[in-house]
Parts: sequence; C-alpha cells; structure tokens
Amino acid sequence: MSIKKIFDEKIKVNTEVNIYGWVKNKRNSKMGFSFIDVYDGSCVKSLQVIVDSSVKNYFKELLFLTTGCSILVHGILVYSKGTKQKYEVQANKIKVIGWIKNSNKYPISSKKHTLEYLREVSHLRPRTNIFGVIIRIRNCFAHYLRNFLYLNDFAWVPTPIITELNAEGAGNMFYVSTLNSVNSSYYKKNVTDNTKNFFGKKTFLTVSGQLTLETYACAVSKVYTFGPTFRAESSNTTRHLSEFWMCEIEQAFSSLEDIILLAQNILKYTVKKVLDSCFLDIEFLEKNIDNTIIKRLSNFIENKFIEIEYDEAIRILKKFNNHFKEPVIWGMDISTEHERFFLEIYFLQPIIIKNYPKELKAFYMRLNKDEKTVAAMDILVPKMGEIIGGSQREERLKQLDQRLLECQLNIKDYWWYRDIRKYGTVPHSGFGLGFERFLCYITGLNNVKDMIPFPRTVNNSNF
Amino acid sequence: MSIKKIFDEKIKVNTEVNIYGWVKNKRNSKMGFSFIDVYDGSCVKSLQVIVDSSVKNYFKELLFLTTGCSILVHGILVYSKGTKQKYEVQANKIKVIGWIKNSNKYPISSKKHTLEYLREVSHLRPRTNIFGVIIRIRNCFAHYLRNFLYLNDFAWVPTPIITELNAEGAGNMFYVSTLNSVNSSYYKKNVTDNTKNFFGKKTFLTVSGQLTLETYACAVSKVYTFGPTFRAESSNTTRHLSEFWMCEIEQAFSSLEDIILLAQNILKYTVKKVLDSCFLDIEFLEKNIDNTIIKRLSNFIENKFIEIEYDEAIRILKKFNNHFKEPVIWGMDISTEHERFFLEIYFLQPIIIKNYPKELKAFYMRLNKDEKTVAAMDILVPKMGEIIGGSQREERLKQLDQRLLECQLNIKDYWWYRDIRKYGTVPHSGFGLGFERFLCYITGLNNVKDMIPFPRTVNNSNF
Repeated sequence: MSIKKIFDEKIKVNTEVNIYGWVKNKRNSKMGFSFIDVYDGSCVKSLQVIVDSSVKNYFKELLFLTTGCSILVHGILVYSKGTKQKYEVQANKIKVIGWIKNSNKYPISSKKHTLEYLREVSHLRPRTNIFGVIIRIRNCFAHYLRNFLYLNDFAWVPTPIITELNAEGAGNMFYVSTLNSVNSSYYKKNVTDNTKNFFGKKTFLTVSGQLTLETYACAVSKVYTFGPTFRAESSNTTRHLSEFWMCEIEQAFSSLEDIILLAQNILKYTVKKVLDSCFLDIEFLEKNIDNTIIKRLSNFIENKFIEIEYDEAIRILKKFNNHFKEPVIWGMDISTEHERFFLEIYFLQPIIIKNYPKELKAFYMRLNKDEKTVAAMDILVPKMGEIIGGSQREERLKQLDQRLLECQLNIKDYWWYRDIRKYGTVPHSGFGLGFERFLCYITGLNNVKDMIPFPRTVNNSNF
Repeated sequence: MSIKKIFDEKIKVNTEVNIYGWVKNKRNSKMGFSFIDVYDGSCVKSLQVIVDSSVKNYFKELLFLTTGCSILVHGILVYSKGTKQKYEVQANKIKVIGWIKNSNKYPISSKKHTLEYLREVSHLRPRTNIFGVIIRIRNCFAHYLRNFLYLNDFAWVPTPIITELNAEGAGNMFYVSTLNSVNSSYYKKNVTDNTKNFFGKKTFLTVSGQLTLETYACAVSKVYTFGPTFRAESSNTTRHLSEFWMCEIEQAFSSLEDIILLAQNILKYTVKKVLDSCFLDIEFLEKNIDNTIIKRLSNFIENKFIEIEYDEAIRILKKFNNHFKEPVIWGMDISTEHERFFLEIYFLQPIIIKNYPKELKAFYMRLNKDEKTVAAMDILVPKMGEIIGGSQREERLKQLDQRLLECQLNIKDYWWYRDIRKYGTVPHSGFGLGFERFLCYITGLNNVKDMIPFPRTVNNSNF
C-alpha cells in the first residue's frame, strides 16, 4: 500500500494499513512516544506515524531509528490531531528492515544539501524530496508526451543508436568499436582494417534519429522516435549533456506551418497534464524552488507563442545593436545573447523564429522560394533558450542533391535517403524536442544535469 | 484525414474527403475508369478509390500511376458496390504529388518479396503491408506496456547508456571513445592514457540498466527503464540483435514470487490490449503469417503459466536423457534444446523456471536458504525461448560481497551499489523483458531482425 494512495483518499480512515518505506525524520517526545515521518517515493509527502513506548521494540530499536532506515509499519490510519497534515498512522507494530550504520556518515542525512553535492551521490539523491519530485514530473511529462502521440496516431519508431552516418554532417560524435587490442589503424581514415571491427565499418553513436525516421514517415505518415542521443561536446554548461533524451516527431504531407502548430499543441498539452497530475510536486517546487512556477506554466498554456521570421528578428536586434558584442547583420546566427535579449527583455515569453538563411542550417531543410532561406523553425523558452528545432524537409531530389553538394557531403552515403525522394516523394516536416532542457523549463531548475538520473558530461561517466 | 478514420467509422458516408496517401495497386477498366487502392500507413487496409475519365488529368497522368506514387484524392465517401470492401471513394480530383521513375525498378513493386530481401531495403520495407503491421503492433505493445506501468505507479528512470561498468561481470561489450587519431594505448588495459578519452576512462555501451535502476527502486519504490541495450555478440541467429530494446522493471519491498506475478500480469495485459486494439493487424497476420495467432494469444491470456523449480526441470529432463546431446546433470544450464523440449514437446505453453544454481547466475541474485541456489526466474515462450529473466536481488551486504568475490569482480567498482545495502537496505526484485523477442512471439514471425526498423548485427550497421 503506497503513501500516495492515502493522500489520494483511496484508503478509508480507521482501517488497518501496512506501510513500507524509509524514515524521513524522527522526533522523540519526552512523553514516551515518537513521531516518524515515512516516505516511499510514491509522492512528495511523508506520512506521519505515531508510535508509543507500549510497542515492544520501542526502547530497544525504534528510539534509535535515523533518517534513511527502512521500516514496515502496521497501524491504523486516523485523522491527524495536528494541523500540518490531514492523516497520520497510529502504529501498533514497526519492523526495522534496514539500518544505517554510522548514521552521522550517511551521505544524505536530513540536513540541507546543495544540488552540486547531490550530483556526487547520484545513486542516493533520489531519496531526497527534490529528486523524487523531478523523477515523478519527468515520468508524467514523458507519459503524456507519448500519450498525445499515441492518441493522435503517431507510431513509435525506434531509430538506431549505432550508426554509420552523421546526421548533421558536422558535430562531435562518439565512436563505437569492439577493437580492444592495439589496432591503431582502425582509427585512421581510409584504411581497410575497419573490416576487423564488429560492424566491418567505422560506426558512431547517433546524434539524431531524424534521417531514418523520415523513411518511416514516408511510409506510415505519422511517426516519432524517443531515445537517447549523443554529442561529444566538451562544453560543460548548464544546458549540455553528452547523453540526453530527444523526442523527434516526423509527419508526411505536412508543411513548416503544420509542425509549428503541432509542436505548440504538444507542449501545451503536456504542460497542462503535468500541472494537473503532479500538483503536489508542483506545489513543492513553488514553495522551494520557483515561486512563479504555477503562474509561469499557466501563461505557457494559455498564451500563443510569439512567431517571427528570422528577417524580423534581425530587424529588431539591429535596433538594439549596441546591446551586443558583435554588430548585427543579416546572415548571422541567433546566439545565446540574442536569445536572452528576446526572451528576457524584449518578448518575455516563448518565441518561434522561422525561415533562417540556408547557410545556418542543415542540408535536409527545404529551400524557400527566395532561395536564400530554408523552412526551419526553432522554439525558444525563457532561461533555457532553444528547446525545439524543426523544419520542413527538402522533398525535391534536385534541390536536395544541390544542398548535399554545397554542404560538402558525399551523395553516395545518402543513397537510401535520396531513395525516399525518388520513389513517391511527399512534402514532410518534423522537429526534435530536447527532453531535459524542456524539463528544466517546467521545473524551474537551472541545470540539465539534475534532470537525468546519471548525467554524462566531459570527464564524468560515474555510476 | 487518415484512412483509419474511415474504417473506424468516424467519417459519415456521402461527405467530401481529402485523402493523402500512396498507390498500393491500380487496375484500369476498359470502361474508362480505374480502381486505385490507396494506403497511408494509418491501418493495414487500403482504401479503394474510383476515378473515371471525366477527371481532367485522367489520360495524361492517372492512367500512368504505379505502385508507390503519392497522391492527394478529393472525392466523396460512399458505400462500395463491390463485396470486398464496405467503403470506397468516388474521386472528382486527384493530384499526383510524387512519381516513381522507372517503376519497373521500384525496389518494392507490388509483387511478393521475401523478408530476407526486404531487410536489404529496410528504408523502404515499412511501405509493405507486413512491416506496417509490425510497426503498429510494436507501437501498441509499447504503449500498453508503459501504460500499465504508469497506471501502477512505476516511474520511468532513464538509466545511462554509456557506462563504466559491465553489469553481468561478463559478456561482450562495445567500447565508446572519442579518440580518433592513433592512440593505441587507450585500448590497452591499465595504462594512464585513458585520461585523453572524453570521459577520462574506459567506457562501454550498457548491457543492462539494472544496477543503476536499483538505486532508484530503493528510493522511490517502483521504477522501470526502457531503452536500447547492446551486446557485441557475433552469433548471427534469429534471436539475437547487437542493439535491442529491453524493459527492465524493479520494485522495492518485493520478493521473487511478487515479480513472477507482476511479470505475468504485465504480459497478459499487454497481449490482451494488442489483440483488442490491433484487430485488423492481427487479422492480417492470421491470414498471411500464422493461422493460429488468435487462438495462441487467447490461450496465452487465459492460462496460468506453468511454474517449476530448476530442480524439477532437471528431474523431468533426466527422464528423457537420451533426447539430448549431453547427459542431464544437476548444475548444468538449461540450453536451447532443453527449452525446446519443454516448450514444444512436454508442456506446450509458456513456462517459468526458478531457483537456479548460483553458479549459473549473476552475482546480484539473492542466495536462497539452501545456499546452493539463487532466487532467479526465467520466463520461456514457445518458439522464442527466454523472453524474461529476473530475480530477487541480494540485499544483504555480507552475502553480496561474498558473491562479488566468488565471481572475481572488484568490490571497489561496486562502491555505490554496495551503498544501497549499507543505507536502509530493503528486499527488492525485478526483471528484464526482451522487447523484440516477445514481439516475435506476439506476431508469429520468426526473426528479431524484422521486429526493429534498422537491425544491427555483426557486419551490419546499414542505414
């Protein structure tokens, strides 16, 4: 029986309950009884258990319980006489399951710990309130994201993790190999010894499932992939992970405008579901992390995102030229300082920037009629910046080949991607959502390293 | 508007419809009209479209449509006069979106292709009926698997893909590295040059998320991980992939018997949901692949699995000693030929074998009172063999350390895993479900390579 069930009012008062959990806190009263707060991770609230000295092992064991000990409580659920909680349990038996030796050395004692410290004990941090909150919100967000997609007939397509191809034609990738012994030639380019490797070729960890996902979009119309994605970037920031989760959605017979609408619908739907379903967790965050969270997420759901052309973005930035390090010119990328200007000074809400110069974007994005820009879009949210990047894909073989050429990519490597254009090509579009970044935005926390249980970053593959 | 909506009776007859899709087949009648079967991947059925020569581009374009061309059909939904289908569309306009040049060279023309051939064109095989069926069943199965877990308060914990640890203390793993240039020393053991690698250490692709998952089970009680898993095994069989998906479930305050029950409940729930939700796809499989599928899956849902001790399994096998290559003795592993004997000759239904000799199993499984066996269980199904492996975990530090020693593993590497036993340890148990294997069982197909869009096996990382 989970503690959540009690707070969800699914257990009747005055019934017997058995609660398995861990001690959050304990206070001994001089009157011969103790208050034990018990948690089991099913919800952020602890359950208050009252046990008195008539219980057999009270003096021998229960008086010595400390934070983190695991116990089984037999008792009666009653209305609490205190004002802090609605329910409590009058224990008639408590079995100690697991002790903590040297409780003063317990790495996550009941005192307050910094998030930085807790990252060093990632195997224990889920026992804290805040990391319980994060994993439950993460779970709820993922559930409703997939649920939206299922209900709207998108099929989950698990795109490969090990790949021969670099989706963007750039970016730092991890190599995958089975060559343990000295075999230096494997890592040289253009040597034949790759044949000794497991796949007989040079292989990498995927940076995006998009290209293979497109083959399914152009067959079953509506698809998504949701899996781990890898970037061997050595920048150690609050927004980068070497291993992160990305949800990529792709739909056939679809334009840039279609996915701009779809992306907004998905984000608003999931945020609303998180607000409704994780109310206790959100309340905890409101009290302890970000006292604007409910207002901020409600605004997110209710207001239409600002949508501007890249051209317009540049025009606005030019007016504030002296705010920025470099002079603003058409053709430049929208950098972090520009994003922050839009999000924190100018618009103060989520924005969508679309139709970027082709030179800034990948080969697969559809060339617009002006032949200077491509049908790309990015969605940016305050504090985190870009959380979604998407585009209409170039479905015309001639234009695609031209772009591959311009991007100095080898057309032969893309034979199967080109086949999709050769055989019954259709307009199609899609986008990728950076899961941990958006989760940061939802929770109001600042660092993606706290959004994934065991973060991988440069020089850190612990646990 | 998807074709599925029409067959789901969500569109009224005599209304105007716009259908985007691809030509499955086309027949021209001498009477001046054509039948075009159109599919869009939303369901296994094609929609019959009738178009006559009064339509403007009939002679110039529509007569030349071939399998795989993409089109937009404007027309009226009507009851079909034919007996093969309930509905059809009378087209008044058809726009050709994408042609197929040299249609006689289209790799997946309307003739029948073998599954082996289709693997070579994995980027186009989702356009066939059978691979549409597979991806939709896979999607439905995954959806209800996650749904069961969500509704039962299991939280999704994305365990890391890149890891320093080999979960089983054995097995062939892939290395992950950023060292592109000649750096032979990296791949030698015990050299300091690993510091030049991205993580400053030797890192691998995960073979199981279980150990890290346990840290969350011992904090929030009920958790699962569902992600790609890697084995660098060079055996090229119908049951092995180098990259496959595994759902691992872990629960605190839980015994071997608890997860045996949980595993059966999950399997039966998901199979029932697939039978109900994917009825058209199952019907297709019944007609084309396995005419026992409905009966087989119904039996799977209704009958309790046979549950036997390892001891008993050995006793039974001994009676049939001369069936097998090697003499049957207590302590030997249950091999494929024994599995097949149980599944195809002796029991003829799913079985659970439990309490194996400790020497056969991993260090983390809980030692039974006999001190010879561990609280492990495997679930086997006809044709595929093992689909689930699970155990109660050793929660007692002393016994765990003893097993680490016996398995010649380095205790220091497991410092964080041991912490979980040091601090408020609890009995807990869990299991892993091989997703593609079980999907094989559900669909009645024989090869896991057809259960994942782009299979990775030795010497194959195509697409």
